[in-house]
Amino acid sequence: MNLTSVDQIKKQNFCSGPAILPAPVIAEAAAAAADWNGSGLSILEISHRSKEFVAVMEEAESLTRELLQVSDDYAVLFLTGGASSQFYMTAHNLLGENDRAYYVNTGTWSTKAIKEAKLYGQVVEVASSADTNFSYIPKGYDIPADARYLHLTSNNTIFGTQYQQFPDVSVPIVSDMSSDIFSRPFDVNRFGLIYAGAQKNLGPAGVTLVLVRKDLLGKVNRDIPTMLNYETHIKKGSAFNTPPVYPIFVSMLTMRWIKQHGGVAAMAERNEAKADLIYQEIDRNPLFVGAAAKEDRSRMNATFVMHHTDLEGAFLEAATNAGCVGIKGHRSVGGFRASIYNAMPIEGVQTLVDVMQEFARQHA
Amino acid sequence: MNLTSVDQIKKQNFCSGPAILPAPVIAEAAAAAADWNGSGLSILEISHRSKEFVAVMEEAESLTRELLQVSDDYAVLFLTGGASSQFYMTAHNLLGENDRAYYVNTGTWSTKAIKEAKLYGQVVEVASSADTNFSYIPKGYDIPADARYLHLTSNNTIFGTQYQQFPDVSVPIVSDMSSDIFSRPFDVNRFGLIYAGAQKNLGPAGVTLVLVRKDLLGKVNRDIPTMLNYETHIKKGSAFNTPPVYPIFVSMLTMRWIKQHGGVAAMAERNEAKADLIYQEIDRNPLFVGAAAKEDRSRMNATFVMHHTDLEGAFLEAATNAGCVGIKGHRSVGGFRASIYNAMPIEGVQTLVDVMQEFARQHA
Repeated sequence: MNLTSVDQIKKQNFCSGPAILPAPVIAEAAAAAADWNGSGLSILEISHRSKEFVAVMEEAESLTRELLQVSDDYAVLFLTGGASSQFYMTAHNLLGENDRAYYVNTGTWSTKAIKEAKLYGQVVEVASSADTNFSYIPKGYDIPADARYLHLTSNNTIFGTQYQQFPDVSVPIVSDMSSDIFSRPFDVNRFGLIYAGAQKNLGPAGVTLVLVRKDLLGKVNRDIPTMLNYETHIKKGSAFNTPPVYPIFVSMLTMRWIKQHGGVAAMAERNEAKADLIYQEIDRNPLFVGAAAKEDRSRMNATFVMHHTDLEGAFLEAATNAGCVGIKGHRSVGGFRASIYNAMPIEGVQTLVDVMQEFARQHA
Repeated sequence: MNLTSVDQIKKQNFCSGPAILPAPVIAEAAAAAADWNGSGLSILEISHRSKEFVAVMEEAESLTRELLQVSDDYAVLFLTGGASSQFYMTAHNLLGENDRAYYVNTGTWSTKAIKEAKLYGQVVEVASSADTNFSYIPKGYDIPADARYLHLTSNNTIFGTQYQQFPDVSVPIVSDMSSDIFSRPFDVNRFGLIYAGAQKNLGPAGVTLVLVRKDLLGKVNRDIPTMLNYETHIKKGSAFNTPPVYPIFVSMLTMRWIKQHGGVAAMAERNEAKADLIYQEIDRNPLFVGAAAKEDRSRMNATFVMHHTDLEGAFLEAATNAGCVGIKGHRSVGGFRASIYNAMPIEGVQTLVDVMQEFARQHA
């Protein structure tokens, strides 16, 4: 991707992550990097113990609780290391050597989560869509009541699939929600632990949100390094060590923006309209075909390929010339991927749809 | 600390970390958060795989190598989790269950490093200055040739002590250099591994620099989670997962600034002049006394207390009124701490010295 190749056109940012942020959030974030609230100091150079930044941390937590309706049974943590660190940290904290956890494999990220969990306990891959290159969400499996948890990836950024409803199981669900948290309402109480790298709907790269049901902790019989123990961060309000100040600040601003725009229910409505627009074009347009099973299509990442792959280069060029950035598909799927997170306006999606229609006219 | 209490005066930022950054770095960082290089996109929302950001990563590595004269025997990594994560990650990667590592205890951070390393192997606390509340750097110990490494904290932010020279040992040194890396020249080749949270001389909170001698890796016989294995990050150029894009970008800008201003040798000269200025005042002024042994005084963090502790509140107020922010001492030492990292101009130190002199005149 070349960000500066087409300077004169308004960019539509379809990057899969780090991804588009709301324009007012970017403006306020940039202003605070220059001079925070007229303090004469940049937010980049202030103490994480200053009362002003402590207030940011508190607001980030309270907005998370409010937007997602998180009860006091759960801790809200802002950590680092991304979902990739949560792959092992979840199992390190929750899965004893002889405990069993069940994992649904829906692609690259689930596969990595499974690999790391195996270092700590008994891991059962209870269902997988590997047979069709992860084009769907497996359903209809049972989870025994003595399982420690069921792990799933709520939205699969690479393959463009997403749980439309979560499985009805009697054990806590542990979920990687990196790419769809804050995009729709869901019942937190069905989950034991939720983790999400910020860099899709929440903020810039560098912070990881974790919601964890506190009563699940402290039950495994192993040494946990201080920084890897969720209880450390609960006790210290995510400030046992220096937290990633600026990524947390920008995430807080994004949550304010979500709240101002109607919360996650309103986000879901907008996201559904955007997804309908792009998928209707994919299904209507004779040049394109959707990559994921229709009933499992992601409202965050629309994946699609071309019937004639030799046209892909020309289409990518046409989209780029129209200002559409970041639509090249992941190499595991090929073709194209339009990531249409919360901050993507429907006008951006329309721009891409227009390119698809014009391209079809030219190549009919 | 209240950042906005005195709005009308130029702030002198003596925070211990996150800490002062050079003004031109802040200006460029803020501009890139609004619109990066005229791309129409904020650097907060661009892919870490974009060729523009890959170039930032490459420049950050090459500037690190150039400024610190790091040979190809070492990997240069940009990770997350701070020094607090390196406390266990170093031992996890370098210290087998039956191996012995030697640790010098010079305060809070060393103590934490020792605690985490004990989870992995045999840890010998070979020397400590706990007997005097860590007011000096212990010297004159021997390290057996079969030790895996000697660990030390090069600068002790809280207590205001710093190694003026590193011990002459036959084993690799592992060092937490969070608060003095890039502040002076030193011979990297005497070290096996160096780690540093960025938020002092390097950049904003959210990224951790690691230099590691590659031949030391892969020798312990234990499972290492993928994200905790240095070899993962070496193979993937610190982009196995999404790196903290903005903190790395700002760190790269700071390294450019260091280079433009003469490199670490020039930084050392400036830092020595600043340290001389403040310590001469501490020693001359009848109201104050330095907290650390003179020969081990830190050139990054000058710690000092008052003979009459009942005057401390009034002095803090006088300093604050003069725009000096962040000089309250850590509770472990009390009194005051002036952190005078690379980006602090000598004029800032002079402002504080002027307050000390004026205060002494008023309270003679």
